[in-house]
Amino acid sequence: MDVYSFLEAVREKSPVVHHLTNWVTIYDCAQVVKSFGASPVMAHAAEEVADMSGLASALVLNIGTLTADFIESMKIAARAANSHDIPVVLDVCGAGATPFRDKKCLELLDDAHISIIKGNSSEIARIAGHDVRTKGVDAGHVGSDLNGIAAELAALRQCTVVITGKEDIVADAHRAYIVRNGVDMMSHVVGTGCMAASVIGAFVGATPNDITSAAAAGLCCFEIASELAVKKSRGPASFKQYLLDYCFTLTKDDIVSMQKVGQ
Amino acid sequence: MDVYSFLEAVREKSPVVHHLTNWVTIYDCAQVVKSFGASPVMAHAAEEVADMSGLASALVLNIGTLTADFIESMKIAARAANSHDIPVVLDVCGAGATPFRDKKCLELLDDAHISIIKGNSSEIARIAGHDVRTKGVDAGHVGSDLNGIAAELAALRQCTVVITGKEDIVADAHRAYIVRNGVDMMSHVVGTGCMAASVIGAFVGATPNDITSAAAAGLCCFEIASELAVKKSRGPASFKQYLLDYCFTLTKDDIVSMQKVGQ
Amino acid sequence: MDVYSFLEAVREKSPVVHHLTNWVTIYDCAQVVKSFGASPVMAHAAEEVADMSGLASALVLNIGTLTADFIESMKIAARAANSHDIPVVLDVCGAGATPFRDKKCLELLDDAHISIIKGNSSEIARIAGHDVRTKGVDAGHVGSDLNGIAAELAALRQCTVVITGKEDIVADAHRAYIVRNGVDMMSHVVGTGCMAASVIGAFVGATPNDITSAAAAGLCCFEIASELAVKKSRGPASFKQYLLDYCFTLTKDDIVSMQKVGQ
Repeated sequence: MDVYSFLEAVREKSPVVHHLTNWVTIYDCAQVVKSFGASPVMAHAAEEVADMSGLASALVLNIGTLTADFIESMKIAARAANSHDIPVVLDVCGAGATPFRDKKCLELLDDAHISIIKGNSSEIARIAGHDVRTKGVDAGHVGSDLNGIAAELAALRQCTVVITGKEDIVADAHRAYIVRNGVDMMSHVVGTGCMAASVIGAFVGATPNDITSAAAAGLCCFEIASELAVKKSRGPASFKQYLLDYCFTLTKDDIVSMQKVGQ
Repeated sequence: MDVYSFLEAVREKSPVVHHLTNWVTIYDCAQVVKSFGASPVMAHAAEEVADMSGLASALVLNIGTLTADFIESMKIAARAANSHDIPVVLDVCGAGATPFRDKKCLELLDDAHISIIKGNSSEIARIAGHDVRTKGVDAGHVGSDLNGIAAELAALRQCTVVITGKEDIVADAHRAYIVRNGVDMMSHVVGTGCMAASVIGAFVGATPNDITSAAAAGLCCFEIASELAVKKSRGPASFKQYLLDYCFTLTKDDIVSMQKVGQ
Repeated sequence: MDVYSFLEAVREKSPVVHHLTNWVTIYDCAQVVKSFGASPVMAHAAEEVADMSGLASALVLNIGTLTADFIESMKIAARAANSHDIPVVLDVCGAGATPFRDKKCLELLDDAHISIIKGNSSEIARIAGHDVRTKGVDAGHVGSDLNGIAAELAALRQCTVVITGKEDIVADAHRAYIVRNGVDMMSHVVGTGCMAASVIGAFVGATPNDITSAAAAGLCCFEIASELAVKKSRGPASFKQYLLDYCFTLTKDDIVSMQKVGQ
């Protein structure tokens, strides 16, 4: 896969990425999109989300700090995105932690077409119907085979499924990528999962005709930046700063020499 | 203009700056105010905004992640600020992106006296009645002369108008300053525009009898800090950290040797 | 006091710390908990807060950007925490600034058992019934003896009281600790008070059978990290980054050689 070409598309097209996301990591979601050269916009009022999605190239939904009203705004935004034929990324943050989260995720999935469902292992397993628990927003134990779960959910929802973890799985009904970049320090930083969903939004916004490859390329670039960042950092906070800086300065050479995307 | 004297006033008086702002950049808005030596407070419940504005020296409104209810709280806060005779800064973030934003900005402007309207070129042009579009929250193309638009809106609304960009315009009915400090890296960092509005709030809170000069001085100080920051930074995230550190450590010497404020 | 043993418990047990907190410092509250090795989760929908508290080891409530609805969710969460016998920390952020804040704090205190009430001097004095004013969210003047106020409120509410300041007081009905670590730079950074409440949440979540000691130990660790951070930093933003990094890397040696906890 020519990962760098996907990054080049983001930098050239600077897609607007509309977010309805959580209040914890909203800044970092916006900044990571901007660091990659795209244009983030955060707006959630029911009265304007359709208009905002209408001028965007991708929509990112993240249920981290959901409320019932917020989910209704997400539905309006997702339907508008569908009607404009722009990709919709759903981060099922915390699915498996409470029945309310599970219910609202399923409502979103039933109400509009979601292009990419993204979560950690227990979040995705829960949305695929497995009886697992998520520890707040950190992954719980998942007994089953993750590749199988990704393929199962991709087939069920006719979409791309992303499971983040030590290795990331990016699968649709026809194929699966494995992204082997990334570092353990990401798990010590709040919001790296949310940022990954926003990065995917920027990449699929720039290359909407091949969203599975674009999602894998986006994750790969983000995680290459993490590998560069961890060498300079002293802990999670300096790591996040280097990460956001390297997303901005990543070169073709960095990508070509470091990418680890398999099938 | 003796820019440093305005900074000195902020540090000496430590004005309380009450914000109703967006959820994306709320932390940075608070921190930049604190870095300059003032005291930020963020509160938006309809039941308390009048009381909070009553103990503040300036009020900053930013519609970045507006909802209808939030705008109602802004109206209460703005009327309270008017009755206490403290300056009100309105950042018309995203005006020109959706009809809802335009409508709510105009409601705010009609409902209370706004002392300073601040935005990028397309946001201000839209509020001045021009037919332009904002690309999410990033400036769209504005054909007309920006100085003219600023003067026009200042006359129409009897206020000071700030247009941020490569050069910033700070104009009221009688005069206009041009602030020529600042660096391009600011456009790669989420929230520098919002922070600029909060900085203006701190400066006009300390010098309420000359808000046009205070606004220009505040922008100048913020942007001198950006010029110092960019020399040390490796990307947008380290840049923002240096920026917030330099706002805290700016010296008289920095200001006097670097200020570029013209008329 | 063996402060390090409390830090070890946090790192070994990695307690889930459920927050209903403010939108300004929510990220830093989550990250400081994660930096110490615990697992933060932020969730405020009335429909799920009881479930989320049910899987947590501690609950942290912070009224910084309160609304009436948000307080209702806090009540549900606090009652659920009581029924699961997990400690509840309440940061009475801004008490004494507006009547609405005072009223809502008292409602929370009357509605469920709060294990730890935390605030700065004027916030705590106000909640203890004294006629003092808070300057937004920064401490106002408190004439009376702080140790007396802490003991008085601890007896009244049958809880532990934490007053943060140059020296921190951690008192229950039977004893009081004084934590003498910390640096003045903390007062120039937005959110260090909120982060302190979250740190207390992580420590009491790991050691729920001795919450007064755990709270003092948590503050001590956080403030030792601040002492290490200030030596490296250039201003408030770099200071915060070093602070969050040092919370992650603190060693037994750091704690033993630097701790200043008296009685």
